Amino acid sequence: MKFTLYMPTKVFYGKGCVKEQAKEFKSFGNKVLIVTGKSSGEKSGALKDVKDVLTSLSINYWIFDKVENNPSLETVFKGSLLARENSVTLIIAIGGGSPLDAAKAIAALSTNNIEPVELLTTSIKIPSLPIIAIPTTAGTGSEVTPYSILTAKQFRTKKNFYSPYSFPTITFLDYQYTCSLPNQVTIDTAFDAFSHLLESYLSIKSTPQSNIYAIEGLKAFSKCLFAISNKNFTNEIRDQLLYASYMGGLAITLTGTTIIHAMGYSLTYYKELSHGHANTLFIGEYLRFNKQTVEEKINKVLTILKFYSITELETYLLKHVGEKPDTSQEEINKFATLAMTQGSVKNNPTSVKESDIIKIYQKVLLR
Amino acid sequence: MKFTLYMPTKVFYGKGCVKEQAKEFKSFGNKVLIVTGKSSGEKSGALKDVKDVLTSLSINYWIFDKVENNPSLETVFKGSLLARENSVTLIIAIGGGSPLDAAKAIAALSTNNIEPVELLTTSIKIPSLPIIAIPTTAGTGSEVTPYSILTAKQFRTKKNFYSPYSFPTITFLDYQYTCSLPNQVTIDTAFDAFSHLLESYLSIKSTPQSNIYAIEGLKAFSKCLFAISNKNFTNEIRDQLLYASYMGGLAITLTGTTIIHAMGYSLTYYKELSHGHANTLFIGEYLRFNKQTVEEKINKVLTILKFYSITELETYLLKHVGEKPDTSQEEINKFATLAMTQGSVKNNPTSVKESDIIKIYQKVLLR
Repeated sequence: MKFTLYMPTKVFYGKGCVKEQAKEFKSFGNKVLIVTGKSSGEKSGALKDVKDVLTSLSINYWIFDKVENNPSLETVFKGSLLARENSVTLIIAIGGGSPLDAAKAIAALSTNNIEPVELLTTSIKIPSLPIIAIPTTAGTGSEVTPYSILTAKQFRTKKNFYSPYSFPTITFLDYQYTCSLPNQVTIDTAFDAFSHLLESYLSIKSTPQSNIYAIEGLKAFSKCLFAISNKNFTNEIRDQLLYASYMGGLAITLTGTTIIHAMGYSLTYYKELSHGHANTLFIGEYLRFNKQTVEEKINKVLTILKFYSITELETYLLKHVGEKPDTSQEEINKFATLAMTQGSVKNNPTSVKESDIIKIYQKVLLR
Repeated sequence: MKFTLYMPTKVFYGKGCVKEQAKEFKSFGNKVLIVTGKSSGEKSGALKDVKDVLTSLSINYWIFDKVENNPSLETVFKGSLLARENSVTLIIAIGGGSPLDAAKAIAALSTNNIEPVELLTTSIKIPSLPIIAIPTTAGTGSEVTPYSILTAKQFRTKKNFYSPYSFPTITFLDYQYTCSLPNQVTIDTAFDAFSHLLESYLSIKSTPQSNIYAIEGLKAFSKCLFAISNKNFTNEIRDQLLYASYMGGLAITLTGTTIIHAMGYSLTYYKELSHGHANTLFIGEYLRFNKQTVEEKINKVLTILKFYSITELETYLLKHVGEKPDTSQEEINKFATLAMTQGSVKNNPTSVKESDIIKIYQKVLLR
């Protein structure tokens, strides 16, 4: 066996954990920047809990709630200015993937004197500010990964900023913060988590360790399939989805993603599909493309999910996400070129050429 | 679900990992104390690899090879004096459980101005020196735990020193370092790992996370049962045993141990049985004592190991460790009183009174 493992984030999982573990907020100084989305912090109830805790501990805080879906370099730069102006010593990230990813970039830009675009082109030299991450969706897994997906106009796509300093120091996982999510967001993010679990499990970088997280997460996800069909998201199901998402985060921390993510980014950047929606469109063809290389593993996934075939799984997934976007062959060529620039392409179980990516795009988007 | 998780140790697992990852030794300053046993560092080959790496990086090192089996407070104090005299900034621990546990105590005493016995009676305030841990046995799991088991004459037993600062910063796991172990040491330590996996899985503190490590480790251990019978320790088996031991360390980090460890300590302290030998004697009666409370989990363990009954498992285990020691009823009474002072007693699946402990000791030692 051969593998490496580094997962330093301290995890508090369970209903009510933010307030129960309030003392954990104490050891980072008394100036904090809260990074959140326009509404996710409020609606989820997480922002109120955090404010209550900080107030009870006499910790000063500023709120940066300007994080849009798919955060831009401009946004994270603005956030870092606010952090610097107020000499904060901790970032608290509340929200879905976008605020969590933005917080990692803000935490890095607050201590490193670099241009925002350098996040994507150079290595971070100085440790970032510490981050406490509180997810309000069950999909990204960002609360335990060092990854931050940023939208870079310079590169006309989404790009992954990664630093060993970007692991959140602490994460609080409470399914209650996901209960106010609309059904479609719940489903799209759940399928994003599924994609992480699946891609990690099939990745050429998968290890005995990453596989145990992937399998554990797939088992949790499998308990939610009927609930997704029925749009019946009980507390138990919210809990399982959050756990599956967390497992997905651990799994991709060890392996990265593969071509599904590489291909999905352009549909988010150019066609404004949500990240989960974009990825889900490709899952069926991705499995067919990789079937010969990792047939046994794919069969294991189907067995855990209790589907008889790739097609049955694909039909299920496509039934619950939105339509495919209108796309031209010219666009597909462009998307394929962009996908090939993503590092995750190298992790795919079957080695991939640009012509393969074009074929998958065609099968998914033109048929 | 409700759990917490903190496992910050960076893990490099695989043949040759120390030399391959030599750069990891660079970021801790250039004065290092190597803590090892009288012979384990040399015989395993690990000490030579570490010396080669340090020399190639022009890092100065001192060697403290005075760690005895079941390290005493006096020994760790001596080690800390050597660390302080030379202003070292990193401890490298090479060996079985004893050197690894000693290193954690030395790392704490090197930065905290306290009496050695205070390790066992107070909380550590100042972060310890960082530790790189390199196990040369497959049993302790200490390379990923914050635990340090010390022998304290004051308390007439072994006691657990624990600090969140005692997690090794990095561990290198290479089964090659375990290949020179005598057969009986291999078996005793393998059964120690099994005991960690079993006790963690059945502990009242077990969580979904700890269970996945316990089950993963039990599966690895199950592949080694024939090899143990045949004393045929191939590289593949050494690899599986090291992996099982590592999983055991992760599992008990999250749950602690239970009464097996609490009861075993006195047989090591007073009867000089190895830790693994001592624990193994109790496993059968421990399972019988807890059968009603956690029957389903015990059945799952038996299924993974492919034993039909507790008795069959017990017979297998006892066949491969040494004899039970001659013990009087008076000694048993004393051991039971000491066992009840161990925190791990509270983690037992079935709640335990001193009279229960006495009965288990009697069944194991007097029959």
